[in-house]
Amino acid sequence: SFSRGMQTVTLIPGDGIGPEISTAVMKIFEAAKAPIQWEERNVTAIQGPGGKWMIPPDAKESMDKNKMGLKGPLKTPIAAGHPSMNLLLRKTFDLYANVRPCMSIEGYKTPYTDVDLVTIRENTEGEYSGIEHIIVDGVVQSIKLITETASKRIAEYAFEYARNNQRTSVTAVHKANIMRMSDGLFLRKCREVAENYKDVKFREMYLDTVCLNMVQDPTQFDVLVMPNLYGDILSDLCAGLIGGLGVTPSGNIGANGVAIFESVHGTAPDIAGLDMANPTALLLSAVMMLRHMGLHAYADKIQIACFDTIKDKKVLTGDLGGKSKCSEFTGEICRRVQDME
Amino acid sequence: SFSRGMQTVTLIPGDGIGPEISTAVMKIFEAAKAPIQWEERNVTAIQGPGGKWMIPPDAKESMDKNKMGLKGPLKTPIAAGHPSMNLLLRKTFDLYANVRPCMSIEGYKTPYTDVDLVTIRENTEGEYSGIEHIIVDGVVQSIKLITETASKRIAEYAFEYARNNQRTSVTAVHKANIMRMSDGLFLRKCREVAENYKDVKFREMYLDTVCLNMVQDPTQFDVLVMPNLYGDILSDLCAGLIGGLGVTPSGNIGANGVAIFESVHGTAPDIAGLDMANPTALLLSAVMMLRHMGLHAYADKIQIACFDTIKDKKVLTGDLGGKSKCSEFTGEICRRVQDME
Ligand SMILES: CC(C)[C@H](C(=O)O)[C@@H](O)C(=O)O
Ligand SMILES: CC(C)[C@H](C(=O)O)[C@@H](O)C(=O)O
Repeated sequence: SFSRGMQTVTLIPGDGIGPEISTAVMKIFEAAKAPIQWEERNVTAIQGPGGKWMIPPDAKESMDKNKMGLKGPLKTPIAAGHPSMNLLLRKTFDLYANVRPCMSIEGYKTPYTDVDLVTIRENTEGEYSGIEHIIVDGVVQSIKLITETASKRIAEYAFEYARNNQRTSVTAVHKANIMRMSDGLFLRKCREVAENYKDVKFREMYLDTVCLNMVQDPTQFDVLVMPNLYGDILSDLCAGLIGGLGVTPSGNIGANGVAIFESVHGTAPDIAGLDMANPTALLLSAVMMLRHMGLHAYADKIQIACFDTIKDKKVLTGDLGGKSKCSEFTGEICRRVQDME
Repeated sequence: SFSRGMQTVTLIPGDGIGPEISTAVMKIFEAAKAPIQWEERNVTAIQGPGGKWMIPPDAKESMDKNKMGLKGPLKTPIAAGHPSMNLLLRKTFDLYANVRPCMSIEGYKTPYTDVDLVTIRENTEGEYSGIEHIIVDGVVQSIKLITETASKRIAEYAFEYARNNQRTSVTAVHKANIMRMSDGLFLRKCREVAENYKDVKFREMYLDTVCLNMVQDPTQFDVLVMPNLYGDILSDLCAGLIGGLGVTPSGNIGANGVAIFESVHGTAPDIAGLDMANPTALLLSAVMMLRHMGLHAYADKIQIACFDTIKDKKVLTGDLGGKSKCSEFTGEICRRVQDME
């Protein structure tokens, strides 16, 4: 795969520390001679005809053309009625699977070791339907929407992922004892799909039980698949086990090869522009992207260089326990990547 | 308070290991000369006129009279349409606050130390409304119901609890960035109530962020208040931090002094009747009950005896890392209680 031609990826640097960590990733990709060229696009919500919020047309066109995106953090809008840009991106491109691998990082001490699991979150419906009503004054309802189509699609994605990544089990996470119809439908689809993947072990577990077991022994989990909100919760919990959002990658996968990989930490406005940010989460998201594109050799090189830098402990950003600048940490990874040639 | 008269408490031993651990609690209460007499009632769902599931009238009458209950685990019904008895009890007596203190237990090793927090869960509505619909074939919705009344009530409970238990902060846990109306209403009520409790620090945090921070450093939390499902999840997560459901107490509190305290672990049918069960969770729930009744001296005695037994490590049940029987563990606690006279 080292001989392929260049591929273009839409780069959404994002807000706050976004531009700095995007620069870091671009430098490391260059050092690794990864066959990627970047098309930078700004994503700030604009209002289309009728007041509908949408992402800027040039960003949309770029993604439609390239099908592949890398995205830094976007600030959460505070204006009422203004949608989360993260959600709007997932929705606009029907990125139905949110994939977050969580692996313990050697040399970065947390209470847990040997964590190696992947949360796969349904990314389009459930508690994120956005449908809410005021019934009478003081009585509000939010609607959790579960469909057969989306449940089947995410279950199939999870089992395909498990099979293609030498994973041994898929656990469906649910509260079908309480939400019997909605989570019941989700669970039923998982069970049905499991029938077609006899090589992958299927388990089902209540969300509360998963949380309890997770903090007691995360090594018992492998691939987990679940509705939208449960994935939001569980992916953050798991990120916490291995060191937080600063070191966990994420991918939003759609149909027909469309995907956006993103760091899921915040914009950290307090340190923006100070060359202090940690680019690891965005870098590992970019590594996920390379694998998704089949560029495994480049992915391996960069990942090894990044993990070795952390393990070595000599050049680390503040949040990782070091005193180095973002550019120094980036430089160290570049050096290691180049040494591998 | 040692001189008070006897008070009667409804005891629901429950299924599986329920009777054994209930016996253990009764023995320890006797050893402590706690001024409690028990009125044992069986709770198996029965169907009333029109097929409505209800708890047996003699159990209901007993609770109505005594207002105070202690409950072992109840098996989860598998018949379709059959409600969870745990939920039916909470509903029948309008037990709107589910209170679960989580404290690290000295001598019982977990990855965390110094955990000392309390989750307070709205126990009557939210995602547990039980309202679900099939919209069209393959499209299902569950309704999350949030009311001003219930949100205000639970927020007030949390702040009162914090004030009366020398707690310093209350954190409202929500996803009002997604469920803007429902969680928004919940959060607004928390903010309003906070205005009346200037002596207690008020914080608000997204559920996913709480989960992440919780596994990284649980000592940053004190009292947490949240809608039903979030409480279900977070209370189990927190239980995991300190050793699991075998050692965590729980109370369901209603208006006018009505309350049921319960162990929230399962019925453990595999070891039922074998004198192997760990009665700690039910015992600590009973201790919570004593405090709720103002019987602090008895509560202290029993709690100290229980924690000292665990710390001492000589007489422990299997799940706590020992080899002793339930009756031996119980005997050891009784001995320590009596030694305190
Ligand atoms: C930013 C926010 C809307 C988002 C979510 O709730 O999904 C975030 O928490 C995430 O996990 O990507
Ligand atoms: C038994 C079950 C219905 C219950 C719940 O979901 O609330 C349990 O998990 C709990 O936390 O008490």
